[in-house]
Amino acid sequence: MSVIEAVRAQAAAARAAGRVLRRSSSEQRNAFLNRLAGDLREQTEAIVAANRTDLDQGAAAGLDGAMLDRLRLTPTRIDGMASDLERVAELADPLSQRFDVRTLRNGLRAHKRRVPLGVLGVIYESRPNVTIDVAALAIKTGNAAVLRGGKEAIASNRILLRIARDALQSSGLPVEALQFIDSIEREASLALLQQDELVDLIIPRGGAGLHAFCRRESRIPVITGGIGICHLYVDQAANLTRALPVIRNAKVQRPTVCNALDTVLVHRKIAPRLVPELVQLLAKDQVEFRCDDEALALATHLPGVRLARAGEEDFDTEWLSLVLGIAIVDDAEAAMRHIEAHSSGHSDGILSDDAALAEEFLARIDSAAVYWNSSTRFTDGGELDLGAEVAVSTQKLHARGPMGLTELTSYKWVLEGDYSSRA
Amino acid sequence: MSVIEAVRAQAAAARAAGRVLRRSSSEQRNAFLNRLAGDLREQTEAIVAANRTDLDQGAAAGLDGAMLDRLRLTPTRIDGMASDLERVAELADPLSQRFDVRTLRNGLRAHKRRVPLGVLGVIYESRPNVTIDVAALAIKTGNAAVLRGGKEAIASNRILLRIARDALQSSGLPVEALQFIDSIEREASLALLQQDELVDLIIPRGGAGLHAFCRRESRIPVITGGIGICHLYVDQAANLTRALPVIRNAKVQRPTVCNALDTVLVHRKIAPRLVPELVQLLAKDQVEFRCDDEALALATHLPGVRLARAGEEDFDTEWLSLVLGIAIVDDAEAAMRHIEAHSSGHSDGILSDDAALAEEFLARIDSAAVYWNSSTRFTDGGELDLGAEVAVSTQKLHARGPMGLTELTSYKWVLEGDYSSRA
Repeated sequence: MSVIEAVRAQAAAARAAGRVLRRSSSEQRNAFLNRLAGDLREQTEAIVAANRTDLDQGAAAGLDGAMLDRLRLTPTRIDGMASDLERVAELADPLSQRFDVRTLRNGLRAHKRRVPLGVLGVIYESRPNVTIDVAALAIKTGNAAVLRGGKEAIASNRILLRIARDALQSSGLPVEALQFIDSIEREASLALLQQDELVDLIIPRGGAGLHAFCRRESRIPVITGGIGICHLYVDQAANLTRALPVIRNAKVQRPTVCNALDTVLVHRKIAPRLVPELVQLLAKDQVEFRCDDEALALATHLPGVRLARAGEEDFDTEWLSLVLGIAIVDDAEAAMRHIEAHSSGHSDGILSDDAALAEEFLARIDSAAVYWNSSTRFTDGGELDLGAEVAVSTQKLHARGPMGLTELTSYKWVLEGDYSSRA
Repeated sequence: MSVIEAVRAQAAAARAAGRVLRRSSSEQRNAFLNRLAGDLREQTEAIVAANRTDLDQGAAAGLDGAMLDRLRLTPTRIDGMASDLERVAELADPLSQRFDVRTLRNGLRAHKRRVPLGVLGVIYESRPNVTIDVAALAIKTGNAAVLRGGKEAIASNRILLRIARDALQSSGLPVEALQFIDSIEREASLALLQQDELVDLIIPRGGAGLHAFCRRESRIPVITGGIGICHLYVDQAANLTRALPVIRNAKVQRPTVCNALDTVLVHRKIAPRLVPELVQLLAKDQVEFRCDDEALALATHLPGVRLARAGEEDFDTEWLSLVLGIAIVDDAEAAMRHIEAHSSGHSDGILSDDAALAEEFLARIDSAAVYWNSSTRFTDGGELDLGAEVAVSTQKLHARGPMGLTELTSYKWVLEGDYSSRA
C-alpha cells in the first residue's frame, strides 16, 4: 500500500468511527478523558523512555536547546497533560445544545442541533503534548481525528497515540476514531490534505510556513491563524503612567507567543515623554527596539539601550522575541491606517481615555480581537473563559479568535411536519 | 497587465473599498438597494438589448432551449429582480448585532460584534440575475465582491454591473466594492482563487463540476454545497395515505432543484402496498423509476409505467429531473445505512408515526437538514424564514444548509479594560 492509499484508508476508518462516536454519550466521552489521564500517569516511565529516543535523535540531528525543550516530556509535564484532560472532562458538552427553536411560517417545527464536525485533520510540529491535547478536544466534541505530528516527536507520538487508543477501547468507544499517520514522508501530509470526501477540517498547529503549506495544498477547509503582528496605539489622551505597564505586559510577559506586542504607535504630542520612558523601562527587560526616525531621535541619547532604525519590513514582522517596533504617528487616523496596513488581524488595541475615539477604533479595526485600555495578551481561550483552546483563528470563516469546544462543532437543521408538503 | 495581475488589482481594489463600505450605515446600504431597483426598471430596455447579444451568440453557439431560457432577461424578470432588491432592503441588518456580552473572570468587559466577512469571490454560471442577487446580498452585509460570471452572459453581466456601480456612486458608497472580472479566460477564475490575502470567501454558484474546481484550486475557503442526493424513508409505521402526497411533492413539485427527492426507501412490510400505489401516482406526472430487484417485482406488472432496474450508481445520482430511485429495505436500520452510504448530506427524511424511531433517525442522520413527516423541498432560505438565500451549504464549516444574510458575516471580539495587564 502506498503512503497515499494508507492515509486514505486511515481517513476512511476515522470517518466510519466518527459515525459511531457521534452517537456516544457525554458520560462515555468524559469517562475516556479521565481514563486517559490515569493511563498517562501510570505509564509515565514508558512515555519518558520513548521520548528519550526522540531527544537523542534530535540532539544527534543538531536540534537547538529550545527545540529540544519543546520536544521534552518529563513526569511533571505528563502529569500536567493528565490534569488538562481532567479539566476538559469537566467542561460542558456543546453537543447537547439545541437552539433557534421555533415554528416556521410554513408550519414546520424547526430547531438546530449542535453536531460534531466529523473528522478533523491536525498537522502539527514538534511538541508531543499536542497529540494528547488534540485527541482530548476531538473526542470531547464527538469528532474523529487524523493526526500528523512532527518527525522529531515520532516515538513519543506513537506511544501517546497507543495509550489514547487503548483508553478508547476500554471506554467502549471506537479505537479507529484516533488515527496517527506514522510516516515522516511529506507525501503523507499532502495525502491527508486531499481527503475532502473524508475529512471535514484541517487544523495546522505550527508556524507561518505550515499554515501557508496547508492553505496552498488543501482541498479541505483550513483554520488559519496563530500569526499575530499586534499593535497598541498610545493616544494623546492616554494616561501615560498607567499605559506603560500595559505596554510592558504586552511585550515582555511572554514574548514568544502570537498575542505578544510587536509594534507601539505613539501620538506625536506625547512621544517626547512616552518614548524615552518606554525605552528605558523595557530596556531593563532586555527589549531591543526598531524605531522610525522620529522615535529614534527621541531615544538615541539614552544610555545602555539597544536601538536600530526600523526598515519598512520590520513593521510587517511577528517578532516572537524581545524586539519592539516603535513608530510616531500624527493622530489616531494615522495609527489606524498603519494598523490596517500592517496588522495580521490577530489583536490590536488603543490606549486612550477618549471614549468616543476608542469606540471609533474598536468599530474600525478589523482584527479578531480589538482592545481598549488593555494588553493584547488576553487573546487566549483560557483568558476569554472558553475553557479550552484548539487554535486562534485569524480568518473570518467559521470562527474568529480563540476557538474552544463549540468551534469544533457544526449544526444541523431538524424539521418536523405533519406529512407536510411545500405549497 | 496580465489576466492574473488584473484580477489581483481588482481584488485589491475590492478590499480597499470594503474598508470604507464596512463603516457605512444600514440606511446608506438600503438606499443603494432601493436605488438599484429603480435603476434596473428604468433601464430595462438597455438590459434587454444587451441580453439579446448574449442570446444571439448563445443560439449561434448551439446552446439548448433550457440554457437559453436561463440566460434570458425579460421586462418581467427584470422587474422581479428589482422587487427582490426592495425585499432585501427591508430585511434586518445583521451588522447591528452585539452578542455574548459579559464580564470575564479576569475583569475585562467582553462582547462580540458582527462584522462583514470582507471580500466575497463569487463564481457562477449562466444566469445573469445572479449578478444582481449577489451584488445585493454582498452590499447589504457590508461586503465587497469580486464577481466572475459565465461567458455566455457576459454582455448582460457587463451592463448589470455598470448599473450597480452607478447606484453605488449615487448612494455615496465606494464604486470599487463591486468588481466584475470581464474576461472569459479560465486563468481569470484561477487567479481569483489564489487571492487568499485579499479575498475572504469563495461562493461557487453552479453545478458539481464548478464546486469541485473551486475546492481543488482555491487557497481561499470555499462554501461547497447545492448538490442534493435526497432520501425519504417510508417506515412500516407511516400513514401511507398521507405519505404518498408528501413523496409526490418532494419529487415533482420542482424536480430540477437540489432539495428535490432522489430516492425513496421503503420498509419491506409495507412495500407490497406502497410501491404500486406510488408508481401509479407518480407515473401520472411522467416520473420514471429506477428500482432495485424487489421494487421492480412489485411494480413491473403495472400498465403504462416506465421502470428500469437500478444500477448501483443510480443511487449515487442527483437526478435533477423526473426520475426516482426506489429501494426496499429490511428496516429503519438498513434505511439509515443506505442513507449514510449514498446521501450527499443535503436533505433526508423519515415518514413514520413512530416518534421514538423518528427521533433516532433525526439524531443519527448527518445531513444539513433532517426531516420528520415532511417533504424535503423545504430546505430553502425562504421556507426557513431566512429572508434571503446566498447558497445551500452541505459542508460543516461556518454555515450548514441554507445561508442567509447572517451567514455572510463574521464577528470580532471587543475587549475593554482599565489599563489591564495579564497576570
